[in-house]
Amino acid sequence: MPTPEPGAYARAGVDRKATSEAVEALLRGARSTAPAGNGRQLPAPGHYAGLLEIGGTTVAMTTDTVGTKVLLAEATDRWEEIGEDIVGVNVNDLSSVGARPVALVDTLLCPAPDRRRLAALGKGLARGLKKSGCHLLGGETAIVPDLVKGFDAGGTALGYFPGGRPPVLGDRIAAGDVVIGFRSDGFHANGFTLVRSLLAREGVDLRRRRPGARVPLAEELLKPTRIYTRPVEAIADDPAVHGLAHISGGGVRNLTRIAHKLRFDLDRWPAPAGLFEWIVDLGDLDLSEAYETFNMGIGFVAVVAEREATRLLARLKVNGAPDALRVGTVAPGRGVTVPELGLAYTGYG
Amino acid sequence: MPTPEPGAYARAGVDRKATSEAVEALLRGARSTAPAGNGRQLPAPGHYAGLLEIGGTTVAMTTDTVGTKVLLAEATDRWEEIGEDIVGVNVNDLSSVGARPVALVDTLLCPAPDRRRLAALGKGLARGLKKSGCHLLGGETAIVPDLVKGFDAGGTALGYFPGGRPPVLGDRIAAGDVVIGFRSDGFHANGFTLVRSLLAREGVDLRRRRPGARVPLAEELLKPTRIYTRPVEAIADDPAVHGLAHISGGGVRNLTRIAHKLRFDLDRWPAPAGLFEWIVDLGDLDLSEAYETFNMGIGFVAVVAEREATRLLARLKVNGAPDALRVGTVAPGRGVTVPELGLAYTGYG
Repeated sequence: MPTPEPGAYARAGVDRKATSEAVEALLRGARSTAPAGNGRQLPAPGHYAGLLEIGGTTVAMTTDTVGTKVLLAEATDRWEEIGEDIVGVNVNDLSSVGARPVALVDTLLCPAPDRRRLAALGKGLARGLKKSGCHLLGGETAIVPDLVKGFDAGGTALGYFPGGRPPVLGDRIAAGDVVIGFRSDGFHANGFTLVRSLLAREGVDLRRRRPGARVPLAEELLKPTRIYTRPVEAIADDPAVHGLAHISGGGVRNLTRIAHKLRFDLDRWPAPAGLFEWIVDLGDLDLSEAYETFNMGIGFVAVVAEREATRLLARLKVNGAPDALRVGTVAPGRGVTVPELGLAYTGYG
Repeated sequence: MPTPEPGAYARAGVDRKATSEAVEALLRGARSTAPAGNGRQLPAPGHYAGLLEIGGTTVAMTTDTVGTKVLLAEATDRWEEIGEDIVGVNVNDLSSVGARPVALVDTLLCPAPDRRRLAALGKGLARGLKKSGCHLLGGETAIVPDLVKGFDAGGTALGYFPGGRPPVLGDRIAAGDVVIGFRSDGFHANGFTLVRSLLAREGVDLRRRRPGARVPLAEELLKPTRIYTRPVEAIADDPAVHGLAHISGGGVRNLTRIAHKLRFDLDRWPAPAGLFEWIVDLGDLDLSEAYETFNMGIGFVAVVAEREATRLLARLKVNGAPDALRVGTVAPGRGVTVPELGLAYTGYG
């Protein structure tokens, strides 16, 4: 089992253990009083979004920020991508419980009221809203120079289950299931504390291209989070779909969040290529750390019944995921392995 | 009409005009692409929360942060109040459209994983959740020392309309209606950029009491946003309730957001007393600016049919608002006046 530190990520300023302890302290406090209980909260342990039944409708809600990727936007003065990321990081978490995204509110903390940047962010938001079918239901733009060093960009998304289809929570995942992967567009919005630390250490010029790339690094690194709403919606009501997972901050280890008592063998996960191969080489990164920090080429997965995999792949190919592919299988055991690279992860905590 | 600048607030670092222009730029961008449209967004112009109909249920959603009040928490190392504020600033906005709060997600941006602070914040969150009947449906705690100077605390709340009761959007407000005010607990979470600037200028010691106060200033200033869920729920489904408004950042001027074509004469609004009188004296503030920056003693209002006002006040008195009182009336015209102080405000924009 790879220990979370001391690795490159901890040295780059992210102390996972202290963070998870602090969050636990927050949650213990927050749970110290039982809520009076309007609506009915549905259990979704370890999941990406909270579920609540109100007035006969089940909704899903999730919140996330773009994190330190904004510092790269700052350095290159590109903001549309960040706007789209605000939507992507959130709606993909809704897709992870099988909810259809329907609304978003954005939260922007800014050191100054910068019209040009906010206009660009707004355009990116619009693109994300369109791709995910979300309404912008509100937002908060706070000009708080005393609180922030640069922009912070985040949001909260709301989803629902049309036609009363059930949430997809991973409880039907079984040994023998197939893991289907959906390609990512680069790093999305995760791992940027490490990325920036490596770029700075190696003195990388973001205006140049890495070998084999068609666009400058700035553009490649800032590519917005791919929005998986369309392909997931194409299969979310299919009983053969047993689990869904957004491969975000925890990399492949995220899979342990949807099934604790089975093992995911990612024996066909594509080898690191392109940007992922480049960052591993640049940082001389341990592959074990890379696979639990970046999405490594696959930004979303669906765990499906083996005998329906071919049919579902065919449906995905004509619904916005032409490059979906089998990346692994489910086996008895626990954790996640990438056998070709000799990687093995246990669950969290 | 009081111009928004140059006043004490602009000198304290809040440029309202530039901010509203920047937000307009954001919204123009965000509206540049029509959303694909799951669900149906209901119009709620100028309102505190967005409304959406999904699967036969109408929900309301709103997002807000505690703002620079956290800097006072930092200075005095008190965090429970901030946790409760995260809930209060949001659920009161839901109450402003007549929605019953049901869920919250919190967003905390922190320079370091500080267990003690997060535990205190969590306890405050729990208190707020209990008072408002909300489930904590998720949250994001980001440790981002490169982005923030200190803590930032915010959240997003979700509400609904039990039994299909209609939203309260102000469209039934008419001349002759009575404005009922609900007392506030100090400044809640608004106006703190100005408050801090005055405290610093005058070298005020937060460990001392102001004349007439029972607790030190730190405690008085940090008092959490009063949560109006219980009294509002007691009257929200009553057809005599024509409008509801959270008196937050814009002070009494907020009333113009719920009725553009009528005038609110706040002829019985309590005179500045206690903390409010003290801050006006301390800063030698223009009353006109004070009333559009602070809640000035009333944190929430209900606009009700005149002939039902006594009955509704009686109901409020036994449902968590024993100190509710008549503070004004609605008349033909536009804007807001506080006749005894000679104040008159137009609407926004």
